[in-house]
Amino acid sequence: MAYWIRFTHAGKTHIGTLEGDIVEVHDGDLFGRPLATGVRLPLTAVKLLTPVTPGKLIGLWNNFHQRAQAEGLSQPPHPLYFIKADTSYLAEGEAIRRPAGYDGKIVFEGELGIVIGKACRNIGVAEAAGHIFGYTCVNDVTARDWLKCDPSFVQWTRAKGCDSFGPFGPGIRTGIEPDGLSVRVLVNGEEKQNYPVADMFYRPREVVARISQDMSLSPGDIISCGTSLGAGPIQSGDTVQVVIDGVGILTNRVE
Amino acid sequence: MAYWIRFTHAGKTHIGTLEGDIVEVHDGDLFGRPLATGVRLPLTAVKLLTPVTPGKLIGLWNNFHQRAQAEGLSQPPHPLYFIKADTSYLAEGEAIRRPAGYDGKIVFEGELGIVIGKACRNIGVAEAAGHIFGYTCVNDVTARDWLKCDPSFVQWTRAKGCDSFGPFGPGIRTGIEPDGLSVRVLVNGEEKQNYPVADMFYRPREVVARISQDMSLSPGDIISCGTSLGAGPIQSGDTVQVVIDGVGILTNRVE
Repeated sequence: MAYWIRFTHAGKTHIGTLEGDIVEVHDGDLFGRPLATGVRLPLTAVKLLTPVTPGKLIGLWNNFHQRAQAEGLSQPPHPLYFIKADTSYLAEGEAIRRPAGYDGKIVFEGELGIVIGKACRNIGVAEAAGHIFGYTCVNDVTARDWLKCDPSFVQWTRAKGCDSFGPFGPGIRTGIEPDGLSVRVLVNGEEKQNYPVADMFYRPREVVARISQDMSLSPGDIISCGTSLGAGPIQSGDTVQVVIDGVGILTNRVE
Repeated sequence: MAYWIRFTHAGKTHIGTLEGDIVEVHDGDLFGRPLATGVRLPLTAVKLLTPVTPGKLIGLWNNFHQRAQAEGLSQPPHPLYFIKADTSYLAEGEAIRRPAGYDGKIVFEGELGIVIGKACRNIGVAEAAGHIFGYTCVNDVTARDWLKCDPSFVQWTRAKGCDSFGPFGPGIRTGIEPDGLSVRVLVNGEEKQNYPVADMFYRPREVVARISQDMSLSPGDIISCGTSLGAGPIQSGDTVQVVIDGVGILTNRVE
């Protein structure tokens, strides 16, 4: 079990493991066999980046029994998903920004993110665990008023793809079992979401297996497992935290 | 006006310009100031790659008067779009492959692709031309039977994101005016599509300006401008060509 981060220090980008507030700097490929350099840094001396730069960040819709029940939906026969633009990626501590020209509602959605570790295509559920590197916190920020403003086409890509609307991190937890986790969201310290991963229609391994039937997944890709009840608006000045005990705490302010 | 390609030769990846069937090898960043190395190769000696590796490949829906009229649609107030997965990218000459487990219709859609050359955000139409590097041919291949198989959610990402469903290239034409172009598609040499770019609701510069209001665009990103009438099914063994005079001919076989 390790907690992997990516960061800049003295003008260079590194990966490392974090224990307490000490960073153990590593060399090499995160998905290969990174080696400890022996250099240790205090967390306060580094600037955190997103822990990976996904080739694709996939987000799921309608993946929770409780939320589906509240919204009159049922389990889809296959996971339903969209892609968040690469320019939406946001690191721990960076600010969520309102798109210029958008004055509607901005909504947080706390989610569990699966980080792919090995390339896969057409794999089964039993093989999926071996292709998952670890788990991270995701905030699937959404310009809610753009989502359905055109009755001819639901604008998932636009509403979820704005710059800064894809915060994830701060790091990646490896070596854990996801099914017992809970996802919480705090806005200015007040709990807004708290739901169990066990309530998913498609749990992480099945999500990976199913989506790998549609398209190849690559090391560093992230699949965010969708959100449940309680997602709601955030305002300028708010601090939003996605808290998954055993995985991490992702904190971003709304600019 | 140049025609830029990317390729491998003797185990290394290079960029270069193509004139006739001679490749002029270049060093440096395609979007910076690449320099001719003086090395010339016959086209037959290189293996073509996709001319760029986009951070995002955006595809437009419902962008043509003629097609909208035929389908009872009207001009959307803002371009409507999805993202094609990075793992869908396919180079000239590579094979379009049927996803395992999908036995439905596979459809070609010939399109004009805009290649971004300079990072932009919130730009106007007048500035857009300066941020466009050039144009390429795109085949927006679609697993049509997946698109609307779940009545609760139109599966753009899934149906258009399969491995090999994003052919583009072979190269990028710079220094041309797009509005007078026509897009044709030939299947086994027979013309299936032939439509003018001028029929677009949102022409290339306006597309770039509009989408840059939603999210940042980066060098190498591609926006595919949507398709018009005539898109149709392709079968195993078919050869499909997207032909844009003045831009290029993109040829792929269906495996």
